[in-house]
Amino acid sequence: MPVIRSAEIITVGTELLLGEIVDTNSARLAQDLAELGVDVYWSLRVGDNRGRLAQALTAALARSDLVLLTGGLGPTDDDLTRDAVAHVVGEEQRVDPELEQWLRRYFEGRGAAMPNSNLRQAHVIDSATVLPNPIGTAPGWLVRTDVGGRPGTIVTLPGPPRELERMWSQEAKPLLEFPSSRLFVRTFKTLGVGESHVAEL
Amino acid sequence: MPVIRSAEIITVGTELLLGEIVDTNSARLAQDLAELGVDVYWSLRVGDNRGRLAQALTAALARSDLVLLTGGLGPTDDDLTRDAVAHVVGEEQRVDPELEQWLRRYFEGRGAAMPNSNLRQAHVIDSATVLPNPIGTAPGWLVRTDVGGRPGTIVTLPGPPRELERMWSQEAKPLLEFPSSRLFVRTFKTLGVGESHVAEL
Repeated sequence: MPVIRSAEIITVGTELLLGEIVDTNSARLAQDLAELGVDVYWSLRVGDNRGRLAQALTAALARSDLVLLTGGLGPTDDDLTRDAVAHVVGEEQRVDPELEQWLRRYFEGRGAAMPNSNLRQAHVIDSATVLPNPIGTAPGWLVRTDVGGRPGTIVTLPGPPRELERMWSQEAKPLLEFPSSRLFVRTFKTLGVGESHVAEL
Repeated sequence: MPVIRSAEIITVGTELLLGEIVDTNSARLAQDLAELGVDVYWSLRVGDNRGRLAQALTAALARSDLVLLTGGLGPTDDDLTRDAVAHVVGEEQRVDPELEQWLRRYFEGRGAAMPNSNLRQAHVIDSATVLPNPIGTAPGWLVRTDVGGRPGTIVTLPGPPRELERMWSQEAKPLLEFPSSRLFVRTFKTLGVGESHVAEL
């Protein structure tokens, strides 16, 4: 299993590009990656558009060991992260019977029939390891691929911060290998007219 | 003056990629652009690296009418936004005497000599219109260019939200023309098991 030395974060959702919500997931993941010794040189927000999502993912795989996609895993037509990943790695999606059963039970437990649209949350591709999400309806995928001309790993995570947090730390991270070296950051607090004085000192 | 129909936001600063600060500037600008009828399809965070910054700016100019760069306008060696813009549009930077005088007075008014490094904040290029910043030391630039093979506008804004807010709304926006059509967003608040039910209704 190759050590992850560089990563790229792609947050998915038109609501981010409309400024309706502030992208806190990126900072959360970036902080963690910095502590794990992983370089993050790029971080993007992309709307709910399959073409642009696939374009961003393809570019990311060509230059980064790990690509984290957050959001776009919901049950509606504009949740396109699964479609974009399948397209980029060139695989067909199929319904995973176990996931379907789990989803149906999730809705039954809430006294509701599962809407047909939720079936897409039971989709997998052959090269995906499913990342369970016991606190939501969107499972994630961990996909190993070399479509970027280099070994790469794609991890899809749900957008809601609580679900993302749990899936990243408890399901995805244990399956990945990170450098042991750490980046040390020292914050200097200063008083005075500005950072130029500090730089000269 | 061409009407701005599409825009791209590039927030600059390694501290964003380390997750030390959350990128609220992007959401602030995105919200405003949505209200002005401007499409934002891409939004990026880039570290303090001249090459990657120039690469992101070049890609943005090829596909968007307006590129907003926030941050990287400080006085230190890792403030590279000015350098990247000058490089991409192929112009040399020079000290603007008026800006230099203004900066020296700014420091005098605070009872300090201006550090030499601050002189770079008085830099301009010929095609830049200077955007004044009376509440900080970093002026912005508004640059019209066609290096992307299409007419494009670059606006550089300071990273501190208060300075960005003022410069964007009071200095930059009045110099730009936006579509009169507006995007109307309607937020539905729902109760129930999830967005799939809503979508089916």
